[in-house]
Amino acid sequence: MVIVMSTEAAQADVERVLASLEEHGCHGELTVGVERTIVTVVGPQAPELPQEMRTLPRVDSVVQLGKSYKLASKDPARAASSVEIGSVCVSEGSLTIMAGPGAVEEGHDLEALAVSLRAQGVSLLWGGAMRPGQSPYAFRGAGEEGLQRLAAAGEAAGLAVVSEVPSVAEVATIAPYVDVIEIGPFNMQNFGLLEAAAETGRAILLHRGLSATVDEWLLSAEHVLHAGNEQLVLCESGIRSYDSSTPATLDLSAIPVLKGLTHLPVLVDPARGAGRADLVERLALAAVAAGADGLAIEVHPAPSQALVDGAQSLALQQYGELVQRLDLLAQALGRPLQCV
Amino acid sequence: MVIVMSTEAAQADVERVLASLEEHGCHGELTVGVERTIVTVVGPQAPELPQEMRTLPRVDSVVQLGKSYKLASKDPARAASSVEIGSVCVSEGSLTIMAGPGAVEEGHDLEALAVSLRAQGVSLLWGGAMRPGQSPYAFRGAGEEGLQRLAAAGEAAGLAVVSEVPSVAEVATIAPYVDVIEIGPFNMQNFGLLEAAAETGRAILLHRGLSATVDEWLLSAEHVLHAGNEQLVLCESGIRSYDSSTPATLDLSAIPVLKGLTHLPVLVDPARGAGRADLVERLALAAVAAGADGLAIEVHPAPSQALVDGAQSLALQQYGELVQRLDLLAQALGRPLQCV
Amino acid sequence: MVIVMSTEAAQADVERVLASLEEHGCHGELTVGVERTIVTVVGPQAPELPQEMRTLPRVDSVVQLGKSYKLASKDPARAASSVEIGSVCVSEGSLTIMAGPGAVEEGHDLEALAVSLRAQGVSLLWGGAMRPGQSPYAFRGAGEEGLQRLAAAGEAAGLAVVSEVPSVAEVATIAPYVDVIEIGPFNMQNFGLLEAAAETGRAILLHRGLSATVDEWLLSAEHVLHAGNEQLVLCESGIRSYDSSTPATLDLSAIPVLKGLTHLPVLVDPARGAGRADLVERLALAAVAAGADGLAIEVHPAPSQALVDGAQSLALQQYGELVQRLDLLAQALGRPLQCV
Amino acid sequence: MVIVMSTEAAQADVERVLASLEEHGCHGELTVGVERTIVTVVGPQAPELPQEMRTLPRVDSVVQLGKSYKLASKDPARAASSVEIGSVCVSEGSLTIMAGPGAVEEGHDLEALAVSLRAQGVSLLWGGAMRPGQSPYAFRGAGEEGLQRLAAAGEAAGLAVVSEVPSVAEVATIAPYVDVIEIGPFNMQNFGLLEAAAETGRAILLHRGLSATVDEWLLSAEHVLHAGNEQLVLCESGIRSYDSSTPATLDLSAIPVLKGLTHLPVLVDPARGAGRADLVERLALAAVAAGADGLAIEVHPAPSQALVDGAQSLALQQYGELVQRLDLLAQALGRPLQCV
Repeated sequence: MVIVMSTEAAQADVERVLASLEEHGCHGELTVGVERTIVTVVGPQAPELPQEMRTLPRVDSVVQLGKSYKLASKDPARAASSVEIGSVCVSEGSLTIMAGPGAVEEGHDLEALAVSLRAQGVSLLWGGAMRPGQSPYAFRGAGEEGLQRLAAAGEAAGLAVVSEVPSVAEVATIAPYVDVIEIGPFNMQNFGLLEAAAETGRAILLHRGLSATVDEWLLSAEHVLHAGNEQLVLCESGIRSYDSSTPATLDLSAIPVLKGLTHLPVLVDPARGAGRADLVERLALAAVAAGADGLAIEVHPAPSQALVDGAQSLALQQYGELVQRLDLLAQALGRPLQCV
Repeated sequence: MVIVMSTEAAQADVERVLASLEEHGCHGELTVGVERTIVTVVGPQAPELPQEMRTLPRVDSVVQLGKSYKLASKDPARAASSVEIGSVCVSEGSLTIMAGPGAVEEGHDLEALAVSLRAQGVSLLWGGAMRPGQSPYAFRGAGEEGLQRLAAAGEAAGLAVVSEVPSVAEVATIAPYVDVIEIGPFNMQNFGLLEAAAETGRAILLHRGLSATVDEWLLSAEHVLHAGNEQLVLCESGIRSYDSSTPATLDLSAIPVLKGLTHLPVLVDPARGAGRADLVERLALAAVAAGADGLAIEVHPAPSQALVDGAQSLALQQYGELVQRLDLLAQALGRPLQCV
Repeated sequence: MVIVMSTEAAQADVERVLASLEEHGCHGELTVGVERTIVTVVGPQAPELPQEMRTLPRVDSVVQLGKSYKLASKDPARAASSVEIGSVCVSEGSLTIMAGPGAVEEGHDLEALAVSLRAQGVSLLWGGAMRPGQSPYAFRGAGEEGLQRLAAAGEAAGLAVVSEVPSVAEVATIAPYVDVIEIGPFNMQNFGLLEAAAETGRAILLHRGLSATVDEWLLSAEHVLHAGNEQLVLCESGIRSYDSSTPATLDLSAIPVLKGLTHLPVLVDPARGAGRADLVERLALAAVAAGADGLAIEVHPAPSQALVDGAQSLALQQYGELVQRLDLLAQALGRPLQCV
Repeated sequence: MVIVMSTEAAQADVERVLASLEEHGCHGELTVGVERTIVTVVGPQAPELPQEMRTLPRVDSVVQLGKSYKLASKDPARAASSVEIGSVCVSEGSLTIMAGPGAVEEGHDLEALAVSLRAQGVSLLWGGAMRPGQSPYAFRGAGEEGLQRLAAAGEAAGLAVVSEVPSVAEVATIAPYVDVIEIGPFNMQNFGLLEAAAETGRAILLHRGLSATVDEWLLSAEHVLHAGNEQLVLCESGIRSYDSSTPATLDLSAIPVLKGLTHLPVLVDPARGAGRADLVERLALAAVAAGADGLAIEVHPAPSQALVDGAQSLALQQYGELVQRLDLLAQALGRPLQCV
């Protein structure tokens, strides 16, 4: 932490800062410049310390150095993390694709879909069963019965299963059916949910909140890691911007930025932000070229009849075309598609 | 809902849309323009209908009319709502001030603070005891003991009490001690928490999420109302913008916008977005001039020693100066300060 | 400037930084912490220096201290600036209102409007004659003839005149007719225009760009001051945010923030961001309560027939109601309306 | 255009709308729904019409259909545009790379750099000579002498030349030296400059403004096309978002969005938004995978000594590594690098 004194600060002001630092168990070193004095803080620093220093007279600004997360930080001496989910390994070594319907519906042959997807490079079956209803009148999903059907389809196809948990109350219900608990964008800062999900021991897929900075996202990841769960994968799915040409703006710059900050693997979910199926292929290819470790793709047997997310879901044939191009791209980049 | 056909749409495309609408239990009426055909939808429309219509061929865009919330909507035939909290009435008729420390701390004479605040126009005692820790290493508040002390101070001073609930797990603990449960910005779309809090029957203070649109905020309000709890007050506390001169940008335009859309009362919390005590007075006065029904003001016995929020908290004397100016302003605007 | 070395930086990395600073004519002082070394830079620092330092190996981050503008900075030893425009003085001592139509139109009795406005507290006549057409097909205003009519109305009513300049080509045309040249939000970073307008010697009204930070705005102000023109007034008129409930979000926090950073007076134009006449009164009152030195109000003889900006313009009667409330507010705040 | 009446609108309100439309030379058709009446407007509609309709009583909202630009619109019956610049053709058929230093500096062997770049897939030489100084104290470039050196290097290497024009005053100076006039983000809505640059007959490279929507960008493109210049290429270089982990957020979703809206080719400039050379390769690959027609890459002989943009510029060797990966990617996607 660096404390920048105002140009009008007197000796007494600087001493007040130094005394306050000692009270808080750390120590300040002075650099006396031509225009102003700067205090560099050495020693252990409580999270609230910067804010307290800002309240002292003639303190111009307080600059925090370093990051507020630790367990999520990249350690230059260690390789990036691999997250093992059954026989699947989400890591920088290959591309992992998870795919499936936004909502498990009655009447779907989910098993046939899962088998088809697995034959086309998918290694994790993804399906919604309990949805966080943004409106109290919205469809909330098929519930536990949907989870049963998702788990059965996964087992039949030999695929591990991913599904979103909407709130703390559903954690206990969902955990037995899935290999990965997905935390959606609404819940990235629902810290109670992060901890409850982490404690199940299931792998966690943590979406970025719609207006979360990269640092805030990693601070939420820290909650999961701090609760003792290291099976953690991040998922970029779009941020809120001023431009309404898509529901959210996919932030692909965040991928190489993350690769410099954290050891955690990161997937990209292109459809949630795009809101339109016709944008998904381009954005999926771009995500992989930007360095994502995998993709989350909404695939529905018949998008035009989907109960939810129809406009942004790929039909199986569209998915097939995407995966062909993706395969060529992955080879060119030296990062093969993971198959199970 | 209005469905705009592409300029290339043929008769068959339009008929496919009409047929699909009938399948969904509603009906389309055509307007055939020079360049394109527009389908206006009449009859009951499911929340997912617009998205499904967008997937049909040669549909250019789908425009939703009306709002997705109902109970939160202003009814032109009825007056704005008044929320009664003990002897306090939050309404358009007067200005309600809630105030107190960001965190209840050991060693504070909270009772003396509460008595002083009441003598200076405060009608609700506000204090944090269970904080949503954005970092797992942050101070989480004094917990249930803090709630006890807050409730005791409220009783001693004759003030109803407001405190924030961080997650579902704490709802049962917090409810017996408070008159108003505060839902903070992180939790605006934590729908499980909204429902659990609503079901306690306590009044609810619902902050706007950091990147929530006004419509999304009212849709979250709808969850509380739909759960049968009408004792609901909104609180604007700043939105995320590109400008970092303050931690969040207080959106005072939202106040008159809300007054046109909803019957719910709205407070403004100027310090959370400003992050600096020296901006609070100006923003508090501006909030009242913009039409807010009241204010939420962080006041701490000794801001420079506060465990949290010290930089943005007013000392009691600063609060006293604010309330004097506020009183003059309130008189000029014909909206007296509420006293209890 | 503070240079934060990476935790892996070796002695050689730090020395490379120190040598590079010497090459650039300044000097680094070291603080060796437990985890990392920090270099505090002393001496004159070129604008490009931070960027160059970032390219050196094992430099984690570079933090700039102080501001990049100088002439626009508040000098704690001096009072805030007053800008004299004829007999009008824009300053913290009183409230200045400029008002008039978004576009001067044929058939308006502009003189009668100007006389009425002056009788109701307006001290500057504002009218658009040359508009920056966001679309090449948009109405660009009445041109020089409009300027003539505006100037004539100003003279008849005894009011100084303000009008917007759309680009460099129009500076010479517009300058003889006006007392104040207005630079609109589109042009805040049109540095060629800032300099050309400044050199006319007319007072300048500089709107904030739609996505300008406060610092960028003051850096644009610096261009005007650096060109030798100190008759400069700022005007907040809304910033771009993610929320589309209004065309732009009026940033009233910026008013007290500016008051801490600059000596320049600042007006608020509530209608441009609000886009709706029914929001103007509330936002105008709030702007004054937030500490604005004045207001810019669009007033049109018959808003529903206006060629431009009809939806956001007040009718004369609405303006009259606003000014009555404003007068009460101004008295309560001890800042009288300026009359000429 | 669709006009949505309020649920309280009476017959007289609807008739007032219809009459007003007739006055404006168009015609309204009614759809009477259960809850409200909708007026669909048929016939020619002035740009200001929606705003005027919003001012009428009991009009709830006015929805504009279609786009405000015409010449920039994609015509489904025609192929995407190719822009010919000497022997270079910017089009969907191949990838065009423009590259060079952010600022032409004294002492550079610009000719050697240009020859090297051409040997590695670059077909347009890019260099800054006249910079829009965001600060009045910033380096403004080498001026006309820099243009001469840039033109000479281009001629020696057999490459067409691109350089940015900062304001209207420099258009006449710059035009003789360059094949492409670049309009930077600050100037996207400097309509006078767009027109002056268009009228030189040089090809135009139009960057997206930092907070421009896709529609606003295309409306600025419309100014160039409307001035009779069809040699127009767009360039995405990052948008302003709330996240400060990079100076601007590269919006790659905009690429496939643009491909659905306009016939104009689009390049991506990854460094301007990223601000860091180590992010450029990933973002460049992602841009191509997203469907960009080419790239603009800052390359400097010695980035750590660059006068400007050093932190975000690639050294020649880094550029060489990028182009090798790009070549593999381009082959996989079936879109070869353009060579001249």
